[in-house]
Amino acid sequence: MARLSRYFLPTLREDPADAESVSHRLVVRAGLARQLGAGLWTLMPALWRAHRRCEQIIREEMDAIGAQELLMPVLQPAELWRRTGRLEIEELFKLRDRRDAELVLAMTHEEAITWHVAREVRSYRELPMILYQFQVKMRDEPRPRAGLLRVREFVMKDAYSFDRDEEGLDAAYELHRRAYARIFDRSGLEWYEVQSDVGMMGGSAAHEYMAPCPAGENEIALSDAGYAANVEVARAEPAPAEGLPAPRPAPERVATPGARTIEEVSSLLGVPAAALIKALPVRTRSGRTLLVLVRGDHRLNEVKLRNHLGEEVRQLTAEEIETDLRVPPGFIGPVGIDVPVLADEALRGLRGLVAGANQPDAHLVGVEPGRDFDCAWADVRRVEAGDRCPLGGTIRIEPAIEVGNIFKLGTRYSEPLGATYLDEQGRERPIVMGSYGIGPARVVAAAIEQRADEAGIVWPQALAPFDLHLVALGPPGERAREVADSLYEQLCARGVAVLYDDRETATPGEKFMDADLLGLPLRATIGRKGVEQGVVDLRRRSDGETWRLPLDQAPEQLAALVRQGVADTAAAAGAG
Amino acid sequence: MARLSRYFLPTLREDPADAESVSHRLVVRAGLARQLGAGLWTLMPALWRAHRRCEQIIREEMDAIGAQELLMPVLQPAELWRRTGRLEIEELFKLRDRRDAELVLAMTHEEAITWHVAREVRSYRELPMILYQFQVKMRDEPRPRAGLLRVREFVMKDAYSFDRDEEGLDAAYELHRRAYARIFDRSGLEWYEVQSDVGMMGGSAAHEYMAPCPAGENEIALSDAGYAANVEVARAEPAPAEGLPAPRPAPERVATPGARTIEEVSSLLGVPAAALIKALPVRTRSGRTLLVLVRGDHRLNEVKLRNHLGEEVRQLTAEEIETDLRVPPGFIGPVGIDVPVLADEALRGLRGLVAGANQPDAHLVGVEPGRDFDCAWADVRRVEAGDRCPLGGTIRIEPAIEVGNIFKLGTRYSEPLGATYLDEQGRERPIVMGSYGIGPARVVAAAIEQRADEAGIVWPQALAPFDLHLVALGPPGERAREVADSLYEQLCARGVAVLYDDRETATPGEKFMDADLLGLPLRATIGRKGVEQGVVDLRRRSDGETWRLPLDQAPEQLAALVRQGVADTAAAAGAG
Repeated sequence: MARLSRYFLPTLREDPADAESVSHRLVVRAGLARQLGAGLWTLMPALWRAHRRCEQIIREEMDAIGAQELLMPVLQPAELWRRTGRLEIEELFKLRDRRDAELVLAMTHEEAITWHVAREVRSYRELPMILYQFQVKMRDEPRPRAGLLRVREFVMKDAYSFDRDEEGLDAAYELHRRAYARIFDRSGLEWYEVQSDVGMMGGSAAHEYMAPCPAGENEIALSDAGYAANVEVARAEPAPAEGLPAPRPAPERVATPGARTIEEVSSLLGVPAAALIKALPVRTRSGRTLLVLVRGDHRLNEVKLRNHLGEEVRQLTAEEIETDLRVPPGFIGPVGIDVPVLADEALRGLRGLVAGANQPDAHLVGVEPGRDFDCAWADVRRVEAGDRCPLGGTIRIEPAIEVGNIFKLGTRYSEPLGATYLDEQGRERPIVMGSYGIGPARVVAAAIEQRADEAGIVWPQALAPFDLHLVALGPPGERAREVADSLYEQLCARGVAVLYDDRETATPGEKFMDADLLGLPLRATIGRKGVEQGVVDLRRRSDGETWRLPLDQAPEQLAALVRQGVADTAAAAGAG
Repeated sequence: MARLSRYFLPTLREDPADAESVSHRLVVRAGLARQLGAGLWTLMPALWRAHRRCEQIIREEMDAIGAQELLMPVLQPAELWRRTGRLEIEELFKLRDRRDAELVLAMTHEEAITWHVAREVRSYRELPMILYQFQVKMRDEPRPRAGLLRVREFVMKDAYSFDRDEEGLDAAYELHRRAYARIFDRSGLEWYEVQSDVGMMGGSAAHEYMAPCPAGENEIALSDAGYAANVEVARAEPAPAEGLPAPRPAPERVATPGARTIEEVSSLLGVPAAALIKALPVRTRSGRTLLVLVRGDHRLNEVKLRNHLGEEVRQLTAEEIETDLRVPPGFIGPVGIDVPVLADEALRGLRGLVAGANQPDAHLVGVEPGRDFDCAWADVRRVEAGDRCPLGGTIRIEPAIEVGNIFKLGTRYSEPLGATYLDEQGRERPIVMGSYGIGPARVVAAAIEQRADEAGIVWPQALAPFDLHLVALGPPGERAREVADSLYEQLCARGVAVLYDDRETATPGEKFMDADLLGLPLRATIGRKGVEQGVVDLRRRSDGETWRLPLDQAPEQLAALVRQGVADTAAAAGAG
């Protein structure tokens, strides 16, 4: 397939200085990717091979559920996005053409596909339908980072389902869930399907596919009982608040000079953090001001708060707290304040709490929600490790890379873009949609993150740029080199994806180090001693297992090993 | 492969009103493409299959010459383009990100690939190298038109060669010429390789691949002796100027009241158009003013003029002629004018000519270049049909679609971007580059243009979305329908790319009309009569040839026909 002496794989001797994650470090060091600009990466030939293998797995599974592949433009009239209300998304790149017409660079293709379907689909007979593409997406990310994990341009497989009703959508959604499970399994990932926020996509339900690893920018809440949700939307029963002070008949003011934070107040008064009320003044996009309360040992979850309120929310600045609420920041509390109060469910029923007194250097003790102040209730806190999940298990929180997501869009796009059909009775009804994304480069990066060791990448065979790394030792003209050349040709003729390290300038040590760094599943070495003994030395990258094959049977046996995927699993080790 | 009842192929009953070419009309009518905005097209599933088949042909031939596939971003820092002087190209889309950094949308990838190679390649040992990709390109076209022929976004295969010297570049260029010949032959195109202008790419030589057809926006000059060049750069010996008036010892003024055009003057004076001097005042971008002369029956070729002068040129307006040259437009001539004169070679040696007198309503007769005015000489005229080509044949001019182009870039990009290598002697030398493009959608559109008939598309089998169009006649429940269903399943199991018209609502006439419109190479029909006789009816789209196969052998024989490509060539017709 490829000779390393001629292959554009510019490996580095040292780790790059700026690497922010394992995959970032390894793809740069192994010569798999290079940055052209902030968040703009070129996938070098070997990584592009891995990407195309991942694409092919996705394509096969999408085709298997009856999806049809097409291609839509990235450049799109801004008008489409104005109609769905998404033109204002900050991550959307906007530009103008030479006639000053407004264009956008699509970050996803709901608008385009719905616009087409609105024009072409007439009857219930044409539904259901699933359409998909592989196309570059562009996003004006505020902080591109971590190599391939957060970029401004990337290839995405995006699919869209079109159904007559919610029942049809449920079926399409299930088809995709099963296809996605097969895709991530075949790609060799460890992964979770988690409940997630619908975010800028809108719609009624969503799941994300998460590959756990330390570099992940997402946090997922998992439990041994099978619960799995993005921390943004996870719900759980908190650990009980223990060691609360005794209730009092009414709140009493105590002096807390200079004690503004939870830690300062709890330490000064000698009560646990869970006895405090954390009061966070917020303002919604439409201008409503609220005081949001969570238990002192809990954190506000802004996504849950936004979803509860139905609009974007931000916390007030210290200055706004002083001027708008006329309360000293650090001493704010719900008793006697004249803005609406929203309390987290975890505070319900608690007594003997501590809250800010809305006066400098003072708090109230013995506070009771309901008795001492009126409030609305909602679940707006972030779940914490140790909470009890809805299925009864114990929550743990892990970082993860989002490799895919699926959304029940409902009529979020078909309504504004007029995508309707006539049902059996001739009535016009909106088409019910779903949307389903996978980023192949994220899948590849996640596989690298999850499986790498100190020596380098450890590819799952399904995504490996090549199946076999053939190493020739010894200078040109030597017998070992001739044997290796011949084996390479025979493997190519058998269709084995083999990378042949035929470099004349590299030492055996450098060749082995580069083979480990690049991490192809199986390494075959041809050296002088082996040739004398009539054997080729094999080493499996995943577990370091080594064994030998007779040279004269090497082409057939190596081809068979690769075909069977033996190189991937420890269980299938050959003879020593 | 696909059932038409479920396939997103929205055919139209009528031709679209706005179609500007055969392929535009047919891709829209056959449901193969839909416009999302001006010059922005979605390739529907069937056309995307054709596109992917074309990509695969290109990929195989590129891989066969040792080229390595990768993927570069479309979004790029503007700075790269500033360094090569191409930031000012009008067709380049420019935008700014949220930090106000300047970005461009790549219309081609010389800048990006050269930037990477400059950073990674060190030694002569790493050269030669050929890199390529399939990636969307974006161009701010002033006049998008004709469906897929002139668009603002399209997928392009762009390849780049990197060599030590001109000799290496020549070899890489030859490799690509041979690969391109195979690609266009395999795609079933009629095509020419023509000499072409280097244009905005720069470099020392270029060829274009042209598919002749009436919708083509390019004109190519061809001769029976094998000459082939874009009219922009074509050179030829003109037909001699015949019937010139007798020479005179000196120019004489004659009154030509109101006669401004070549036709008016030639008719008024009773001389052939070839006896006139057409005088065109022009101004270069740097501000030089010249009077350019061509023979009265010839046309100025602005590309040749620009290349001769080495800068962009425009013709003066009538107002500028009056104010800047103080000459009445329509009566301008080279005798006594005080700007430099550049005469086309076809005027050299002619005597007894007619030229404007630089006075109202007057011309000079008996004019002789060299004697009556000084001038520089150059070949700046457009060749005409009937001219004698450099190889001795007779020129004809044909419209054509440009489907590919190749450029010897030399050091046009490696110099400004610092792409150098160390040669055997350790000297730093610039890398010598070539660049090689193909637009798969143009190839597909050209194949449609060249082969369509009144009934619709006639696909070459290599690009056809499916190989076989299986038509079931009769209502569900009938025996013919069951037989067709079973044949469809058996063909799918054999891996035949079959489109199955299983629609219940279409009449046989509609099914046959749609099959002709979509134009797959081979149609197989299962109807009641055929089933009774135990046969399936075949019809080849290219020549209308019909024949029959025994039903019980249909799966094997159809699979064999498709595999052998029999459906494509009239020579391989089956028995009647």
